[in-house]
Amino acid sequence: MKSRTMIIRTLSIVLALGSVTLYVQQPHAADREKLLSDPGIYATFAAFKLDPEWWKLDKGVRDTAAAAVKEVVRKHNEQIAIDTYLLRGLSEYADVLIRVHATDMLYNQAFLVDLMGTTFGAHLMNTSTFNGMTKKANYVPNFPDETKAALKTPVDPGAKPYIIVIPIRKDAAWWLLNPEARTRLMKEHTDAAIPYLKTVKRKLYHSNGLDDFDFITYFETDHLADFNNLILALQQVKENQHNRRFGNPTLLGTVHSLDEILEVFTR
Amino acid sequence: MKSRTMIIRTLSIVLALGSVTLYVQQPHAADREKLLSDPGIYATFAAFKLDPEWWKLDKGVRDTAAAAVKEVVRKHNEQIAIDTYLLRGLSEYADVLIRVHATDMLYNQAFLVDLMGTTFGAHLMNTSTFNGMTKKANYVPNFPDETKAALKTPVDPGAKPYIIVIPIRKDAAWWLLNPEARTRLMKEHTDAAIPYLKTVKRKLYHSNGLDDFDFITYFETDHLADFNNLILALQQVKENQHNRRFGNPTLLGTVHSLDEILEVFTR
Amino acid sequence: MKSRTMIIRTLSIVLALGSVTLYVQQPHAADREKLLSDPGIYATFAAFKLDPEWWKLDKGVRDTAAAAVKEVVRKHNEQIAIDTYLLRGLSEYADVLIRVHATDMLYNQAFLVDLMGTTFGAHLMNTSTFNGMTKKANYVPNFPDETKAALKTPVDPGAKPYIIVIPIRKDAAWWLLNPEARTRLMKEHTDAAIPYLKTVKRKLYHSNGLDDFDFITYFETDHLADFNNLILALQQVKENQHNRRFGNPTLLGTVHSLDEILEVFTR
Amino acid sequence: MKSRTMIIRTLSIVLALGSVTLYVQQPHAADREKLLSDPGIYATFAAFKLDPEWWKLDKGVRDTAAAAVKEVVRKHNEQIAIDTYLLRGLSEYADVLIRVHATDMLYNQAFLVDLMGTTFGAHLMNTSTFNGMTKKANYVPNFPDETKAALKTPVDPGAKPYIIVIPIRKDAAWWLLNPEARTRLMKEHTDAAIPYLKTVKRKLYHSNGLDDFDFITYFETDHLADFNNLILALQQVKENQHNRRFGNPTLLGTVHSLDEILEVFTR
Amino acid sequence: MKSRTMIIRTLSIVLALGSVTLYVQQPHAADREKLLSDPGIYATFAAFKLDPEWWKLDKGVRDTAAAAVKEVVRKHNEQIAIDTYLLRGLSEYADVLIRVHATDMLYNQAFLVDLMGTTFGAHLMNTSTFNGMTKKANYVPNFPDETKAALKTPVDPGAKPYIIVIPIRKDAAWWLLNPEARTRLMKEHTDAAIPYLKTVKRKLYHSNGLDDFDFITYFETDHLADFNNLILALQQVKENQHNRRFGNPTLLGTVHSLDEILEVFTR
Repeated sequence: MKSRTMIIRTLSIVLALGSVTLYVQQPHAADREKLLSDPGIYATFAAFKLDPEWWKLDKGVRDTAAAAVKEVVRKHNEQIAIDTYLLRGLSEYADVLIRVHATDMLYNQAFLVDLMGTTFGAHLMNTSTFNGMTKKANYVPNFPDETKAALKTPVDPGAKPYIIVIPIRKDAAWWLLNPEARTRLMKEHTDAAIPYLKTVKRKLYHSNGLDDFDFITYFETDHLADFNNLILALQQVKENQHNRRFGNPTLLGTVHSLDEILEVFTR
Repeated sequence: MKSRTMIIRTLSIVLALGSVTLYVQQPHAADREKLLSDPGIYATFAAFKLDPEWWKLDKGVRDTAAAAVKEVVRKHNEQIAIDTYLLRGLSEYADVLIRVHATDMLYNQAFLVDLMGTTFGAHLMNTSTFNGMTKKANYVPNFPDETKAALKTPVDPGAKPYIIVIPIRKDAAWWLLNPEARTRLMKEHTDAAIPYLKTVKRKLYHSNGLDDFDFITYFETDHLADFNNLILALQQVKENQHNRRFGNPTLLGTVHSLDEILEVFTR
Repeated sequence: MKSRTMIIRTLSIVLALGSVTLYVQQPHAADREKLLSDPGIYATFAAFKLDPEWWKLDKGVRDTAAAAVKEVVRKHNEQIAIDTYLLRGLSEYADVLIRVHATDMLYNQAFLVDLMGTTFGAHLMNTSTFNGMTKKANYVPNFPDETKAALKTPVDPGAKPYIIVIPIRKDAAWWLLNPEARTRLMKEHTDAAIPYLKTVKRKLYHSNGLDDFDFITYFETDHLADFNNLILALQQVKENQHNRRFGNPTLLGTVHSLDEILEVFTR
Repeated sequence: MKSRTMIIRTLSIVLALGSVTLYVQQPHAADREKLLSDPGIYATFAAFKLDPEWWKLDKGVRDTAAAAVKEVVRKHNEQIAIDTYLLRGLSEYADVLIRVHATDMLYNQAFLVDLMGTTFGAHLMNTSTFNGMTKKANYVPNFPDETKAALKTPVDPGAKPYIIVIPIRKDAAWWLLNPEARTRLMKEHTDAAIPYLKTVKRKLYHSNGLDDFDFITYFETDHLADFNNLILALQQVKENQHNRRFGNPTLLGTVHSLDEILEVFTR
Repeated sequence: MKSRTMIIRTLSIVLALGSVTLYVQQPHAADREKLLSDPGIYATFAAFKLDPEWWKLDKGVRDTAAAAVKEVVRKHNEQIAIDTYLLRGLSEYADVLIRVHATDMLYNQAFLVDLMGTTFGAHLMNTSTFNGMTKKANYVPNFPDETKAALKTPVDPGAKPYIIVIPIRKDAAWWLLNPEARTRLMKEHTDAAIPYLKTVKRKLYHSNGLDDFDFITYFETDHLADFNNLILALQQVKENQHNRRFGNPTLLGTVHSLDEILEVFTR
């Protein structure tokens, strides 16, 4: 990781000049695999609705606008991992969800500011933004070995077209429980989740102080019925009593490449 | 049901190309009766308000726009069951409600994305979307035989012009009750509902994790007074203490064909 | 009351054709007195704000638009009782409130859809809609004779320029009380209200399942101070502990004929 | 005070004709001092934000619009006491707050409807409106003599540029307390407030049933630090446990004449 | 500090005339260091979103607009300390946050009114405004010496690019605790915070009565992970049980000069 000072200077320059060439000078491209699996990574989920004005633009103008978005993505791809989802039709909250991972939140912001500065971006209404970071598993080290083993169940291969994002805030009583009590409750929570490990891929982000909730929970699945049963199982353990907020909004969408999403909006 | 992979590929193509011909190649048309009665079916309720700009369009433009909506419906009718309702006048939340059933949520999205991509759709503001799925009855198998028999009371024939949609979220205590306790409470709930089975048709969707509530309850009736008494009866059983959210919004509207609804908006 | 089937067919035709002549063929005009006093009547309260675009229209265009509203009202007056109120200046929620009574909710919708389809209606933003129905008094039959007698106190004659509309939702505990306990609490509630019967006219609508609350309470008065003291008295009885929602919004306005209200908006 | 019937007729004429000359015939001008100190007076606080379109108008158009506002104020000044405040910069809820006092709420409405009917008014978005009335002090008669004496402490002379408006709703338990218990709690509340009587001027409005809260509390001060300490002191007495709503919104602004405020918006 | 009367007169003139020269006559420029460290200072945090119309303006018009903003800042810099933050990309609530400190809230308002009166300002939608004031530390004087000493830990030097602003409202029970009990709880709170003093800079504002919460907490850091752990630690002490509101919104952004921010919006 580069020195902090350099990052900051870079951001300032990026923000001030919007220069494309700057990032080309970066020595190493972003390692997508590491960004998506390492602890200490910062994630931003930004959800957008397209304003009605967009649809009044000529097809040609919209095509040019889409090309500019792709250019912005190409430029930032070296620093960050970008995933895009289509929520339109399944959520009143957003048409598009963009998930960004980077070693520093500054990179997430630099990309999103650039994106929102394009012609397409000028028509995006930012309806929700969730910030969080990844950490090493908190309770797992104190779980019994068989639970640890079960948690290593590999996810079934194959496309997982559905994603669900649920922000969660625990109540004050939760945080006042001693670590042993929380571990016990999380063990019960984990046991309820294990049957679904094969078909529902999960990822957890910590948000305390970075946003108005404590966790962002992210799920990918090909089997919505399994996912529905997973959540039902998690509602039936005692830890669920400590969820002061669960969703609001719950974001349900489908995985699509940026090209596919832009195609939907430039038809 | 087609293989999952094929469905996904199809959706991507539909989304990317917006091709009409694709679906024509599907071997079997959607079986509306099965979609409306089977378990394991995915439903999306999408509510829309028309923006004020719509009314400034020429009658001719609006007529062409309406025709395009009908074409989109025709195209997707082979995959999904589409029902339309007029909420305008009875709800500040929406002018139109569209209920879609399919064997896969992807089909619901593909239709709604296509619909929202029409000229008419560009003027629709998506104010609420509810997602859920159907399941086999959960508590009925453990009910006494007379209750089971009573539940088979056929609904009176004839048009049921009114529909009501109420999302419900239970509290954490509900989900922590053991199955026997929940069955007992649901038996009491069911007994309260039985007198209204003839005049109020009910359908239940499970939403845990798919949206910000646990159930979508859907009702059709010709007798709003009976429906009002049904809800009153359901409020007077102990299970009602566990409803953390009931409505918000409650959507009341009337059943109308798409043609009738489009007629209202193109007059 | 006409047969249900006929009503439904009529609505469909009204919605589809917007024909004025249809209603002229109806044999009996709506009996306003009965609609305003009978049980089993359906009421819709629709509140609107005028959008800023309205004010940019020429005086002539606005005059023509107002005339069209009067025509729509004339057409539906045979089926429904329409009351209009000016909220502008006293409520941020709405400029105008329209209260409609009919033997069937379909008539309320048909009128409001027609109204919203006029040029004036295209500039009305529907900010709140409350649905309810009238019923026979629930607890009064079990009240002591002197309370029954007191409830027959006639309202003072004369104009009552102020109206207040307050939606109320009771808590689950209320509905679980046995009828005797509720009657006891309602007796105390009624005793608190009796001193205000002369100057504050009241009307109650039941909304369970028809909207996001249990009751719409409607008041007319010439003495706002009396009304304020009435509510204060009602807050000081135990039944008030069971009001989970009281207002939100509370709508305060003044009684005005449609002509007066349209005059305000076409000056 | 004129007869009620006359007032109503007058309002109808004012609303219908918008005639300026009508009010000139009123025999007595509004006594501002009495309106601001008497019990039984009705107050409306109307908060507005200017829409972005206003700023696109030519300076000349805005000047003419401002002159029309002044004319409306002049016309109604005979019936009502009008105070204006600038909230812009200190509150996201509103740019301008207008407080109106009259012997009848009808006058408040007539003025605000006239104001909102001007060119300037067409650009005002009404974000909050609070209605209340003044009453004789409720608990003071039962306070000990020394508390009564302390309450007569005169407010320091001099301009009080800051105003704060806080709506308050008590919980059900408060209203169920017997009068002695409430007097005891209000005595403690009053003792906490006495040290601030010199620098913070207070005025109380009763809103039960007239709006979605029980009280509007209004404060004027030259010393925001004193006001902050006053509220802190009031939070530390037991009566504060019964405040179910306190603010939401809290409106902080500065006292300015209408001319000054219009100057800000016509620069 | 100048006499109050003079300040008020000055504000009125500033508001009425918008004169630049007035401030030039002020004898002493604002001492930024003192404003940012003294007790008794008034702060306003104003958050803005740019409306979509801004982006339709020509680059030249936007450049001229940006220059006017800089001129307004220059003019007011003599009275107030202005800090600017970029929230765009990391918060759906705002694009820009402006923090202002002055010896009097009037100065904060005068600056923000001037800013909002520019062409750029006409496109700023004020989404949140927080008001507060600084005070001497409340509980520290009663802490043990070692805690006092620990609190003097100097913050690590170097840029702190991230800022987080969290408004907090305590519950009624908190304010009813006796000072000793509160000191005890705050001692525990402080102990939890001490490990983060080096990397997370904190500043506290008191808002009781000035806004809809009791405190504005402001943080600057270069290490978001440390900040996240700080909040996590603060959630695990008993004082956290008394936070009725924590965030809503939580504002996360980055420190940028006004020039950098304007550059982003004029590209």
